[in-house]
Amino acid sequence: MLDQPPSTAIHTATQTLYVGTRDMVRLVQRKGLPACIAGVAEQLRRDFLRWNEFEKTARVASHSRDGVIELMPVADAARFAFKYVNGHPKNTREGLPTVMAFGVLADVATGAPRLLSELTLATAIRTAAMSAVAAQALARPDSRTMALIGNGAQSEFQALAFRDLLGIRELRLFDVDPAATAKLVANLDGQGFSLTVCASTAEAVRGADIVTTVTADKTNATILTSELVEPGMHLNAVGGDCPGKTELHRGVLERASVFVEFEAQTRIEGEIQQMPADFPVTELWQVLAGTRPGRCSADAVTVFDSVGFALEDYSALSFVHDTALALGLGQRIDLMPLQDDPKDLFGLLREERAAAAVMV
Amino acid sequence: MLDQPPSTAIHTATQTLYVGTRDMVRLVQRKGLPACIAGVAEQLRRDFLRWNEFEKTARVASHSRDGVIELMPVADAARFAFKYVNGHPKNTREGLPTVMAFGVLADVATGAPRLLSELTLATAIRTAAMSAVAAQALARPDSRTMALIGNGAQSEFQALAFRDLLGIRELRLFDVDPAATAKLVANLDGQGFSLTVCASTAEAVRGADIVTTVTADKTNATILTSELVEPGMHLNAVGGDCPGKTELHRGVLERASVFVEFEAQTRIEGEIQQMPADFPVTELWQVLAGTRPGRCSADAVTVFDSVGFALEDYSALSFVHDTALALGLGQRIDLMPLQDDPKDLFGLLREERAAAAVMV
Repeated sequence: MLDQPPSTAIHTATQTLYVGTRDMVRLVQRKGLPACIAGVAEQLRRDFLRWNEFEKTARVASHSRDGVIELMPVADAARFAFKYVNGHPKNTREGLPTVMAFGVLADVATGAPRLLSELTLATAIRTAAMSAVAAQALARPDSRTMALIGNGAQSEFQALAFRDLLGIRELRLFDVDPAATAKLVANLDGQGFSLTVCASTAEAVRGADIVTTVTADKTNATILTSELVEPGMHLNAVGGDCPGKTELHRGVLERASVFVEFEAQTRIEGEIQQMPADFPVTELWQVLAGTRPGRCSADAVTVFDSVGFALEDYSALSFVHDTALALGLGQRIDLMPLQDDPKDLFGLLREERAAAAVMV
Repeated sequence: MLDQPPSTAIHTATQTLYVGTRDMVRLVQRKGLPACIAGVAEQLRRDFLRWNEFEKTARVASHSRDGVIELMPVADAARFAFKYVNGHPKNTREGLPTVMAFGVLADVATGAPRLLSELTLATAIRTAAMSAVAAQALARPDSRTMALIGNGAQSEFQALAFRDLLGIRELRLFDVDPAATAKLVANLDGQGFSLTVCASTAEAVRGADIVTTVTADKTNATILTSELVEPGMHLNAVGGDCPGKTELHRGVLERASVFVEFEAQTRIEGEIQQMPADFPVTELWQVLAGTRPGRCSADAVTVFDSVGFALEDYSALSFVHDTALALGLGQRIDLMPLQDDPKDLFGLLREERAAAAVMV
């Protein structure tokens, strides 16, 4: 059952398509990472433009000493999606990723899950795509240089998204862990960037058009202070994304135009958790829809206070679902029972029928 | 990777044990359904007795025209659990189960998911076990006759749980769908019951010691009115479990002592959604712990206003996890990436390493 190739019949009955890490790697390799980032960006744009069709809830977070585990649901009239994701900064000490994720896409009409997918790799892609979509609306169009503060698991994806969707050609890199920067430099070799390894955040930020902060510590860190921020900069603040985890000094926010994904959630989780409840922000979808202004002048400082919203995982899951089916990747799994008589769950247990009843 | 047998090594790294419907059927067949019900009942009792160690949240529900999709999280210091479950009464018309579920058990310390399991079958077992654990504390000890109103997917499990844990020997059956009752009669053949098929709820309830209502319609139904309820009865109200879905007339509640799982959730979802916010209820764990009284007299009417709480799925998932490992069932899946360097997610995509990196 687990080794059958998927088919269009996946849309019937109670079959679930499973895309694990192995198949996700294959999917990205076959389609190409740049095409995946561009495809997810396009899906994000489409979904953000129908913002009001979605039922939105802030994520459910379970905090513990060393980290957080979150469930992020969202739905429109046709599909329900959720992501499971953790954030455990100390995990790397044990050889585990800081952030791991998986998600499900289900039919609203029946509740049947259609796709179960790894989302660790896919989240990196959708986060980078989201950052680039926001920066297309908020950064100066002539931006060519980006400072990348935090050179961990997410950094290569940010670099490539900004190369392809913004035209960034020069990267200025800093991480408190020099090994992380060395890894990033090695991974970006031959990707068309001019790379500068910097000794501090201040050095990296100097002269940059865009500053992307993607650090992992679960603290109220001060990666950027107002002195470092130059007129005209766009700040892509990715790492501050839960209560008690921020990257920008409040002085930076006070002098900037701040854009968010879903205001109700960002008030709790974003950089603006440091600000009064009436601190003005603009939801990005309104900028994309043309109903609210983005960047007002070449000298303005813009901030995308990104925390990651469930709708982005909906977009990523939709992309994975369609792409996996198109490429014939993924496996069918027996997550849900297939019964002759749905009122006869007990019948599944009758020995003589068990073998047949679970065939898909 | 999907066909390797599990081992104790499952507890290391980022491997997830997958127990699909096929393996769950095998698990229940090998252990035996009565032993599974008893084992889950024991786990429930243990977990309810350490009630205050759990972080409890009401479920997150997404309602649509034809049903609901819910996420039910719960955690203690060691494990985080959640269940995905739908409720779509019309599904049976399309040959799909009304209720389908799966769940995850994860390590709080790292966020790594340890078990992904089907929970459709397991939910039927844990719901029946929970009903029986409550009835042991609330029903008259000499109860021998149970009315079973609603003879769908959950009914066999209720019957067996009450046979083994309460000593119920006589069942009086009613369902608006005679085919459902016929299926239940056939499934319970040779299980040690005296069965009476009744023409109405009133006929089924008459003279019963315990009344179990487990109907599926998403309406404010009136399965039981006060006239039908006799002194000394215990009512096990399983079917009313979300806003707008109830089974008991409020007159029944007014004359009964009402017991709930998690008060905050039951006020929204249970039979008591019909009652004022200060309508008195007792949380079951207090009765199990001996800190609050259960049944006060042989003539009292008791109601277990069961809605299904996430802790019960935690108990079920714990039972499935331990039992699957003990029986060597389940498969290891690549839900999470295994990386040489956890900061190098991008490295997963390098072609020459891809094959090795996803090996488990």
